[in-house]
Amino acid sequence: MTDQPNTPAVLAVDWGGTWCRAGLIDRQGEVLWQARRPNPRGGGTAQYLALADTLLAEAFGLEGIHADSIGIAVAGPVDPESGTLYQPPNLMPLDGISLKQIWHERYGLPVALGNDANMAAIGEFHFGAGRDAAQAGRPHRSLFYVTVSTGIGGGVVERGSLLLGANGLTAEVGHTTIDTTTSAPPCQCGKRGCLEAVSSGTAIAAYARARLSEGRNRDSALAALSPEDLSARAVVAAAVQGDTFAHAVIARAVEGLAIGLANVVHLFNPDLIILGGGVSEGLTQLNLLPRIRQGIHERLMSELHKVFDLVPSVLGDNSGLLGAAAAAWELTDNL
Amino acid sequence: MTDQPNTPAVLAVDWGGTWCRAGLIDRQGEVLWQARRPNPRGGGTAQYLALADTLLAEAFGLEGIHADSIGIAVAGPVDPESGTLYQPPNLMPLDGISLKQIWHERYGLPVALGNDANMAAIGEFHFGAGRDAAQAGRPHRSLFYVTVSTGIGGGVVERGSLLLGANGLTAEVGHTTIDTTTSAPPCQCGKRGCLEAVSSGTAIAAYARARLSEGRNRDSALAALSPEDLSARAVVAAAVQGDTFAHAVIARAVEGLAIGLANVVHLFNPDLIILGGGVSEGLTQLNLLPRIRQGIHERLMSELHKVFDLVPSVLGDNSGLLGAAAAAWELTDNL
Repeated sequence: MTDQPNTPAVLAVDWGGTWCRAGLIDRQGEVLWQARRPNPRGGGTAQYLALADTLLAEAFGLEGIHADSIGIAVAGPVDPESGTLYQPPNLMPLDGISLKQIWHERYGLPVALGNDANMAAIGEFHFGAGRDAAQAGRPHRSLFYVTVSTGIGGGVVERGSLLLGANGLTAEVGHTTIDTTTSAPPCQCGKRGCLEAVSSGTAIAAYARARLSEGRNRDSALAALSPEDLSARAVVAAAVQGDTFAHAVIARAVEGLAIGLANVVHLFNPDLIILGGGVSEGLTQLNLLPRIRQGIHERLMSELHKVFDLVPSVLGDNSGLLGAAAAAWELTDNL
Repeated sequence: MTDQPNTPAVLAVDWGGTWCRAGLIDRQGEVLWQARRPNPRGGGTAQYLALADTLLAEAFGLEGIHADSIGIAVAGPVDPESGTLYQPPNLMPLDGISLKQIWHERYGLPVALGNDANMAAIGEFHFGAGRDAAQAGRPHRSLFYVTVSTGIGGGVVERGSLLLGANGLTAEVGHTTIDTTTSAPPCQCGKRGCLEAVSSGTAIAAYARARLSEGRNRDSALAALSPEDLSARAVVAAAVQGDTFAHAVIARAVEGLAIGLANVVHLFNPDLIILGGGVSEGLTQLNLLPRIRQGIHERLMSELHKVFDLVPSVLGDNSGLLGAAAAAWELTDNL
């Protein structure tokens, strides 16, 4: 008598500042099951860990699907070897915790863990824009993923391997300096002129608010919005409607991205750049990717550096979860 | 009857804009033999290849040393897989040539080839500052090598492997933008505000000349020099003597380096940064490495990013040659 054949899968977790998501994902990157729960507001470490345990128990209790490794993407800096989180601003109850160690001991399974933007890069490589490019006959050697959202982060996959650096803190393109003028805007990290301070969703909204508060651009549709409603999403929506001021606000963010990504191209020489995150969706909707590409090209030292594709994320909100799955599949394959 | 025992070695070549150097190097990075010849002025491809053949024949003809792989560092962009050089500005007769293919066919040995700054990074990793740090109980995971000389280039070694990117054009830190003001100086690459246009030896000399030509700083020792004699070396020498103007010129270059290297730290998260090249020797002599380190620290987003050592090159002018040797040893080990 043998066991029922189970569909092989891995358990992937994407733990952000708002939700803890879990999924069972097959080798092709298909999500066989997923669930999510909101982080316990005001909860401590124990509440956070209990929340995740509930999701994991749910996943491991499902009939017909068998996972033998775990992958985790977390919103914050994490040492990929020890698995320890370092002061994750949006997940502070997990500071100093190693989910890798805890879950490995509890479930007896190998656990891979990484920063969410790094994991998103792996996800796009295995199951998203990277796979699509390869299947379309344009295989690539070096991928740079950048997420432009509330903040800006990134990940590098070089010949199939995630670039980790000394402590898993690579590809922090959001905090590279792209404005050295005296009017460079301050960044939440404490510096001035960071890419994140110019081109993130937060920066787009802040810049629009600041210009409008000066009493100019009263003819813009954005002038009618309350400061709370004046989001990057609202700026994109106005630009889609042809709003001149909104377009100027977006153009500034695009210019910043071009400077930051030109530096990235000089340093990593990627042949595939993937734009993820909500702001990138807006830029794609506005058909601005050719403009970004052109802006990068204008700043490159050689023709050979210009040989890269610039494409939108294929996986969208699932990129972190699917990256965690890809990292888990690597563990399964090495069992 | 058996052959005489031969000392095992590899043949390393470092081909720059002025000299073609060859060396036989043992597994510990000791140079057992070396020779160099000047490039044939005004010569074409055939003259250049003949020059190298002479050196290689000399090396292979030596008694008692046996090399079974070849490593080459060249001054210019090169595809590490095909081995083809792309318009190397200082070695144009070799444009489109694959020394890797030619020498492999001629000598029947495996050949590794790379850009000289990339090779220098491998050299420092295996035989220089990287090895020293490891032997001193500070093993590192991610090394960034930067050469500050006439121009500025670099190389990344991540967990023992050279980062190649799509086409071997990584770590071009000299052409990242570090000045976005309207007074950003032009770079020889055609852009403005590149690190190379601010902090290279060429830029240091140009800036000093420009300031002196305005008729200011007449009390500086540098004011007595002809424009031809006003080199970066002369500026460093004056600074060593306490010349205030020379110190100000150097301070500007140091500031540029700090901005560029802070971007590098955010993107690569190195735990070892090695400063090579003639200008770096001057900065080391002036005891400015703590100042550079501090300037980088001030621009970093997190405490964890600050955990790196900043040290001068150990190999100096031999870094490219020894990197070529290290790359060749990797081939030998895979035979």
